[in-house]
Amino acid sequence: MPANRRISMAVIRRLPRYYRYLGELLENGIKRISSKELSERMGVTASQIRQDLNNFGGFGQQGYGYNVEYLYKEIAKILGLDNKYKVIIVGVGNLGQALANYVKFEERGFVLCGLFDVNPRLIGMTIRGIEVKDIDEMEAFVKENKIDIAYLTLPKSKVRKVAEDLASWGVKGLWNFSPVDLDLSSDVIVEDVHLSDSLMTLSYRINRQMQKKEAQLKKLHK
Amino acid sequence: MPANRRISMAVIRRLPRYYRYLGELLENGIKRISSKELSERMGVTASQIRQDLNNFGGFGQQGYGYNVEYLYKEIAKILGLDNKYKVIIVGVGNLGQALANYVKFEERGFVLCGLFDVNPRLIGMTIRGIEVKDIDEMEAFVKENKIDIAYLTLPKSKVRKVAEDLASWGVKGLWNFSPVDLDLSSDVIVEDVHLSDSLMTLSYRINRQMQKKEAQLKKLHK
Repeated sequence: MPANRRISMAVIRRLPRYYRYLGELLENGIKRISSKELSERMGVTASQIRQDLNNFGGFGQQGYGYNVEYLYKEIAKILGLDNKYKVIIVGVGNLGQALANYVKFEERGFVLCGLFDVNPRLIGMTIRGIEVKDIDEMEAFVKENKIDIAYLTLPKSKVRKVAEDLASWGVKGLWNFSPVDLDLSSDVIVEDVHLSDSLMTLSYRINRQMQKKEAQLKKLHK
Repeated sequence: MPANRRISMAVIRRLPRYYRYLGELLENGIKRISSKELSERMGVTASQIRQDLNNFGGFGQQGYGYNVEYLYKEIAKILGLDNKYKVIIVGVGNLGQALANYVKFEERGFVLCGLFDVNPRLIGMTIRGIEVKDIDEMEAFVKENKIDIAYLTLPKSKVRKVAEDLASWGVKGLWNFSPVDLDLSSDVIVEDVHLSDSLMTLSYRINRQMQKKEAQLKKLHK
């Protein structure tokens, strides 16, 4: 794929979903799938799938469909999952601990190397054999171990400074769980996960549905 | 707002972000903001903001801008945050425990009422004063307490059945953390949080950037 080709974020965000569905097909022993069948399972149009995959050269064969394992592996490559990433977690509260214990990430190539916190009650504790270190030791650790990615589960007020530091020490990507959009000056890649945004979207949708139901009831009783 | 008005999911997903930014302005004592200023902070166009808010009747005044506190409260209402929601968590592993300990959600009206798991080692444990109960007791609990929302942090293989059950017992919304798209037959609202999709998007973007940098280097050395 030419490095200068622009691919929209919308397409990129659909790729992990393709990967997930293909993984499930593989688990179920399905070796081949038509774009029509895949589209029905995923709830998107077949032409959408073809268009999306054509961004990366296309992988289907007329009259045959997709070879599930091949497509799964190719999408893994596109997503960079054939690489290994050295990861640290900054902020080892409940969420940090949950992420540290999530072995699925490890299996996909995101290898946990270090845990950092400021809380003396947490420092010295071990998770999956990795000791929680004082955040003061982080700079040396990141530089020595050439850390690629940091998961950030810090309080909102602390996260920006830590993020800027990590970027200046050579970290390539930040997975940010703090409720702040990290727009940093450097070219580090930031992926924000705003859990509370998602919860608020849920409450909005619940309310809208209740309003609709009430409106329908009123109509019925007129 | 008329109940039958269609508002796009794209607009809806931006609302929590407005809410978050307005909350920060309030914290910093800012009482009034022009749409231009708000747009610069948020990295969206001023016309986008006006368009988005016009879906709900608009809140700005020509020449004055937005009253921050008023707009914050109005968006809270639109998001349904003036309501209280009774919440249970199903699956009290690391992530479930992290969510249970997240008091910010509680402050926004999502009141944790129950915790359920199948693991005998977890049953009987308490988090924030709430005892983890056997999942067998869930049906009675949900019906008696009229639970509104369930956070699902269960293994992929278990989640669909539990979700269908909860929906049939009257739960209105599901916040799903399992790596499955829950397309249920009932009209329960589902909000999926796919953490691994987000992490894969991060690795994709890191790889793309490295490819671009390599391409630039090659050009320089030609």
